[in-house]
Amino acid sequence: MRGNPGTEVDHVAPLHRAGPRAIAFVASQRYLDELSRTGAGVVILSSRDAAGYAGNALIVDNPHACFAKIAQLLHPPYTQPAGVAPTAQIAPDARVAASATVAAFASIEAGAVIGEYVVVGPGCHIGRNVEIGEDTRLLANVVVAHDCHLGRCCLVQAGAVIGTDGFGFARDGERWQKVPQLGRVVIGDDVEIGANTTIDRGALDDTVIGNGVKLDNQVHIAHNVRIGDHTAIAACVGIAGSTTIGARCTFGGHIGIIDHLTIADDVHVTAGSLVTSSITHAGIYSSSLKAQPVEEWRRNAARLHHLDELAHRVRDLEAMLKKFTQEHKP
Amino acid sequence: MRGNPGTEVDHVAPLHRAGPRAIAFVASQRYLDELSRTGAGVVILSSRDAAGYAGNALIVDNPHACFAKIAQLLHPPYTQPAGVAPTAQIAPDARVAASATVAAFASIEAGAVIGEYVVVGPGCHIGRNVEIGEDTRLLANVVVAHDCHLGRCCLVQAGAVIGTDGFGFARDGERWQKVPQLGRVVIGDDVEIGANTTIDRGALDDTVIGNGVKLDNQVHIAHNVRIGDHTAIAACVGIAGSTTIGARCTFGGHIGIIDHLTIADDVHVTAGSLVTSSITHAGIYSSSLKAQPVEEWRRNAARLHHLDELAHRVRDLEAMLKKFTQEHKP
Amino acid sequence: MRGNPGTEVDHVAPLHRAGPRAIAFVASQRYLDELSRTGAGVVILSSRDAAGYAGNALIVDNPHACFAKIAQLLHPPYTQPAGVAPTAQIAPDARVAASATVAAFASIEAGAVIGEYVVVGPGCHIGRNVEIGEDTRLLANVVVAHDCHLGRCCLVQAGAVIGTDGFGFARDGERWQKVPQLGRVVIGDDVEIGANTTIDRGALDDTVIGNGVKLDNQVHIAHNVRIGDHTAIAACVGIAGSTTIGARCTFGGHIGIIDHLTIADDVHVTAGSLVTSSITHAGIYSSSLKAQPVEEWRRNAARLHHLDELAHRVRDLEAMLKKFTQEHKP
Repeated sequence: MRGNPGTEVDHVAPLHRAGPRAIAFVASQRYLDELSRTGAGVVILSSRDAAGYAGNALIVDNPHACFAKIAQLLHPPYTQPAGVAPTAQIAPDARVAASATVAAFASIEAGAVIGEYVVVGPGCHIGRNVEIGEDTRLLANVVVAHDCHLGRCCLVQAGAVIGTDGFGFARDGERWQKVPQLGRVVIGDDVEIGANTTIDRGALDDTVIGNGVKLDNQVHIAHNVRIGDHTAIAACVGIAGSTTIGARCTFGGHIGIIDHLTIADDVHVTAGSLVTSSITHAGIYSSSLKAQPVEEWRRNAARLHHLDELAHRVRDLEAMLKKFTQEHKP
Repeated sequence: MRGNPGTEVDHVAPLHRAGPRAIAFVASQRYLDELSRTGAGVVILSSRDAAGYAGNALIVDNPHACFAKIAQLLHPPYTQPAGVAPTAQIAPDARVAASATVAAFASIEAGAVIGEYVVVGPGCHIGRNVEIGEDTRLLANVVVAHDCHLGRCCLVQAGAVIGTDGFGFARDGERWQKVPQLGRVVIGDDVEIGANTTIDRGALDDTVIGNGVKLDNQVHIAHNVRIGDHTAIAACVGIAGSTTIGARCTFGGHIGIIDHLTIADDVHVTAGSLVTSSITHAGIYSSSLKAQPVEEWRRNAARLHHLDELAHRVRDLEAMLKKFTQEHKP
Repeated sequence: MRGNPGTEVDHVAPLHRAGPRAIAFVASQRYLDELSRTGAGVVILSSRDAAGYAGNALIVDNPHACFAKIAQLLHPPYTQPAGVAPTAQIAPDARVAASATVAAFASIEAGAVIGEYVVVGPGCHIGRNVEIGEDTRLLANVVVAHDCHLGRCCLVQAGAVIGTDGFGFARDGERWQKVPQLGRVVIGDDVEIGANTTIDRGALDDTVIGNGVKLDNQVHIAHNVRIGDHTAIAACVGIAGSTTIGARCTFGGHIGIIDHLTIADDVHVTAGSLVTSSITHAGIYSSSLKAQPVEEWRRNAARLHHLDELAHRVRDLEAMLKKFTQEHKP
């Protein structure tokens, strides 16, 4: 802390509208201009950025993480009072901790175990024998199908569906035979699952989500996928069956990853890419294609559809030129 | 109107099965063949298309928009009777207009304000302090999280989720610290939101959806996105955090748009494209790649993965040929 | 059957953890190594793979389909007891078969017809005049809007939405006029629909899903799409309006298909592709782009954005070299 140690703040705010009781942060040099004009009571920043700032400053190595922790303290999530809503329905032999909250129109089936301080939001459905660890919160209309496990301190956004059947069918003439999906979904601690995200149960073995994994909205995780600890996956990503993802990976939005692959730890993939083979080394990977004005793009895309032919023409040119130069040595 | 002014119609129908009490329309010349055989009581068409048609015709500049308005009149949405279902649950200090409908198993939390003629469908959850403007309709199982605002005359299809947390995390060693999401979602008037679409609340400032915006199913709008008036976004599009979209834009299905971009007014992007940098001028943009027979595609895609090398070979050829021609001037 | 005909099994298991009362299967030669070490009571395999295996073997032409059928017998889906939960709400003139199950917080509107042995899961909403055929099961929080029909023996996973409005708007100056969506969704027999998948009702005619169709999670089917029998569509695929898909097709994950196309029978498209024109012949199609290390990809993608220019340079080189060789004939 540099400046007045008696400064009191009671909320976080962005630099551009922070007042004297607000704490703000600077995590990138592109905000230095806003910093120079801010009215924030305190600003969290790195020693590099603090050099040019005269106000109250909390100088740390990682301003973004420090800001996150302070914001968590100043703005804890709203908690409904513990207890079971009169309009919830809980099977007689489900076990719900006394400190848990079960909201209106939630249903909890036989054998389920709901831990201390868990919140089961309105309209949620918890299937048979599901176990939910302490402090985990499920927002509205979440579905967790039978036998799945969620760890502690997870947060599941509205409309997420955990444990529905994987897409398992066997060809039988022109028909498909359904392969019963007998595995579970097993989710670690401190996992966040986005709105309307779906995670399928395993076919025979389980689908496994590691500790600290963060899934954005509308992510699809197929049966028997395994995701390593602290991997973060942005919205609209789909991961096909039996693919194993390492720890500490990040995936941009709208990525597709096909089935039966193995992705190493610390792999990062840019938005809109498609992963069609295993990745054995940490690093950044991409097949993102940037939109350009449509007339230019159409000409280029048309060439792409004949690129192999173009490559052959280049090879022929090389051969002809080589032959010709040999015949015409000066 | 050309033809018999006493013609009565009571429903709309497609040309191919319209009878004498139906009104149909022609918006494209590809339907002129169907027009020649239609049994419709009246057809809405442009003066150009009306020239070759002898039946009753309503001749307008914009047949599609005229048809839409007539269809709205002839086929108004079914409205449940006003009132609160006995199985709905409304917090004592929520304010629900007398003309509003609250369906079975809907829950409305403290401080919410539900306007005149609003419909809250079955299984919907309306969080604390949400405000919903007059005539807005929410179909089944919609979730609107605390503090969000919806304007008037909006239509929210089933399963949509508005106001869940944005995907905000700060790296902290190998872990992620959650950044509390403290902004709201603020939605204008006359907005349609598709089934299972998700719109995240802002981190500090709000996520803002302009008037007349139309979002199809399974669209994902991240935190702090701003969308200008009358922009239409087709299904499965994802827009990443803090991107600002102009007015009157259209986006085809399955487009990804990365974070922190600015897209001008009147920009149109074709289906399946990826937008990775800001677009400053109105126009049509694309990176759509058309599927072709797999053997051809694989050869071309393999070349694409060595395209830079191919370009160098072409440059070398140009240099060699230039040098050679200079040495061999006739 | 080869081996001990008195062997009893009571569950299915994967080769690597199957015990003496388990039946396992081998469908691919890549599992022959696991086969050699399995403790399974019986293994289902082809005569080719059985040659090197000494244990109890059920030798069939299609081990995967045989395994699926046996797994269906040994692991039937859990069935709740028939009857209507006290917390369900059913309109007086809806018809629910005595053998049907209606779970907690499900609502069924006027005129709906629910067939024998149907399961309507918790939190489901069934609109006016919906018909659901015998033995069809809807898991939690499914929505079926008014007038839609589902055939027999279908399975609808949690959160799916059937029959919401198609994305139909007519340009009217800078505004959009809503085109009322008056068609239905009509779904055949033996169809599976994945979690959070959405199927829009038709605009004037119906949206039609054939018999035996399998849709994975988060698939989007737009208005007036028609899908032929036994076609299977993986997760996150979007099909735009009025496109007709043939029978026995398969689509990998994350495919986009634009509107008003016709796709023949027995067409297969690889994951992540975009279909932008009709496909008239059976076969495999692709525009999948594999991610590669980002520095290499960026160089290649940059060249792609100037590929037309590169092609012109190659053409110029060809012309120059041809001219030059003619001038310098030995």
